[in-house]
Amino acid sequence: MAPALPAPLAVSLGDPAGIGPELLATAWAARDVHGLPPFFAVGGADVLSAAARQRGLDIQLERIADPAEAAAVFPRALPVFDTIDGAYRPGVPDRAGAELALASLTRATALAVAGQACGVVTGPIAKSLLAEVGFVHPGQTEFVAAACGVAAENAVMMLAGPALRTVPLTVHVALAEVPRLVTTDLILRRGRIVAAALTRDFGIARPRVAVAALNPHAGEDGRFGTEDQAVVAPAIAALQAEGIAATGPHAADALFAPHNRGTFDVALCMYHDQALIPIKALDFDAGVNVTLGLPIVRTSPDHGTAFGIAGQALAHPGATMAAIRLAGECAARRRA
Amino acid sequence: MAPALPAPLAVSLGDPAGIGPELLATAWAARDVHGLPPFFAVGGADVLSAAARQRGLDIQLERIADPAEAAAVFPRALPVFDTIDGAYRPGVPDRAGAELALASLTRATALAVAGQACGVVTGPIAKSLLAEVGFVHPGQTEFVAAACGVAAENAVMMLAGPALRTVPLTVHVALAEVPRLVTTDLILRRGRIVAAALTRDFGIARPRVAVAALNPHAGEDGRFGTEDQAVVAPAIAALQAEGIAATGPHAADALFAPHNRGTFDVALCMYHDQALIPIKALDFDAGVNVTLGLPIVRTSPDHGTAFGIAGQALAHPGATMAAIRLAGECAARRRA
Repeated sequence: MAPALPAPLAVSLGDPAGIGPELLATAWAARDVHGLPPFFAVGGADVLSAAARQRGLDIQLERIADPAEAAAVFPRALPVFDTIDGAYRPGVPDRAGAELALASLTRATALAVAGQACGVVTGPIAKSLLAEVGFVHPGQTEFVAAACGVAAENAVMMLAGPALRTVPLTVHVALAEVPRLVTTDLILRRGRIVAAALTRDFGIARPRVAVAALNPHAGEDGRFGTEDQAVVAPAIAALQAEGIAATGPHAADALFAPHNRGTFDVALCMYHDQALIPIKALDFDAGVNVTLGLPIVRTSPDHGTAFGIAGQALAHPGATMAAIRLAGECAARRRA
Repeated sequence: MAPALPAPLAVSLGDPAGIGPELLATAWAARDVHGLPPFFAVGGADVLSAAARQRGLDIQLERIADPAEAAAVFPRALPVFDTIDGAYRPGVPDRAGAELALASLTRATALAVAGQACGVVTGPIAKSLLAEVGFVHPGQTEFVAAACGVAAENAVMMLAGPALRTVPLTVHVALAEVPRLVTTDLILRRGRIVAAALTRDFGIARPRVAVAALNPHAGEDGRFGTEDQAVVAPAIAALQAEGIAATGPHAADALFAPHNRGTFDVALCMYHDQALIPIKALDFDAGVNVTLGLPIVRTSPDHGTAFGIAGQALAHPGATMAAIRLAGECAARRRA
């Protein structure tokens, strides 16, 4: 059952040439079966209508003049707020599409910041295309943080699926840079944000934070790499001293094995692939990217624009529905 | 059904205080249900007998004077060759146990090298304990390579499970060392060994070798890290020029997602956790460590001694049975 929400969720379109619009339409069509909370699209009424038809969906869209109308409209039609729009050309990204994607993202986020939406779910964009139309952020996470007035370093990306939650401490950097970037202070600061967010947004009173080791087997007592003893372990001790249920450093290869997955609520990982390999292996069609540490709720399906399969009814709506459901759950908990 | 083999498989005991002996006895007890090929234990008759009793198994053991007797004995009793033996004290490793483990490993391997066994399955040992009784190798893989007269660098560890096969290019080194150790030449040499072994031992005529990228998203055209373009890609091109179906460099986070796992026969990974995280997440109870590139067949269950749960009937026999079955299949293919 959908939780009671103070306001509907705003969903940005994503790149109109990607799989975002068709998945948004599919999610609305499946709203009852999947118990999704009320949401509205920000712009793209024509794009959504065309994407739905191409996917073989016979759905109703209804333009709304105020986000507050969304909840009443939602049962009978997909509410669309804002008149920004464009052409639907799946698999053929262009500048106009990037501009629409950016405008939808910007306005959806602003509605959440203003409290007219209880959170924002962002559709998949192509960062390189957005950069060409003036987007200056490395990704949507940093954009949303800036819109909230939060420093990018305090907006923490978490990947959440049915099997696992992971947080990458470093993201889009060369592997060679990782050992230098992983510091005791960084682990400590991120660990605090993650633990607080799991309580506030996920309702876990005392979240168990498993910290993955940087080196294989956590370096086996310094035999290969000293960072786990010198850098990671002190951060864990400091988190524990603050009352956070942090453990580790754990050998990362075994951490995600079935018998270990139930022993923690989130794994704090040292680098991108360490966090994303297990979540994509186990939770691919239901992986949600959640931004922790913001004054607003923000989630996103954990996949890209997939231009190559857009408009072919091949894209799986699981992650989009999971992102909408999770945003609704987090927003409800913040109000509780 | 068990394949027809020219000789039985030799199985080393592993550390007698670990879970090796009880799992070996369990595998024999389940030989029919799981279609295991004939195997014999190398030494440890008393250890095996006690471990079986402690696990609640009522099994027969029969000492054999010649490995050639194993096939005839196997249906009625677990054949044990060699009189080396010791006390069974699960969870309490000691020097005598390490000596027994080393003697069993040494003799089992020698029987395979001599052709009296069609392959060797090695039970789990504690490397640090073995080092105290004169074991000079980093692990069993290097020991078996040396016993075969093969340079350690040409013995390639592969992890194989029902969902996935992965090969780590580098293993027990600090993460900071990995970028320096990954060279075009290393990828090329390992790629050749892996492709040849998948044909010879796994019956795959033209193995598809997916090469994982070192950097996240393969560095996104050099935006974060140039190694994938400068080091990894040339190795893939060279493998392709030799007629090997190599692809990549593939972004490692997506490579092990369900829809990608069927597109390759083996993933050549750049470092330990990149290869072992997905296999342990997906195939934990059936993961087999296979050594490729040797004149003999060698497999091992992909787990350690697990002293903490030894003798408590908690250890899962899946990986041991999978290691025995896979060794039998590889040996049968070499003879075919």
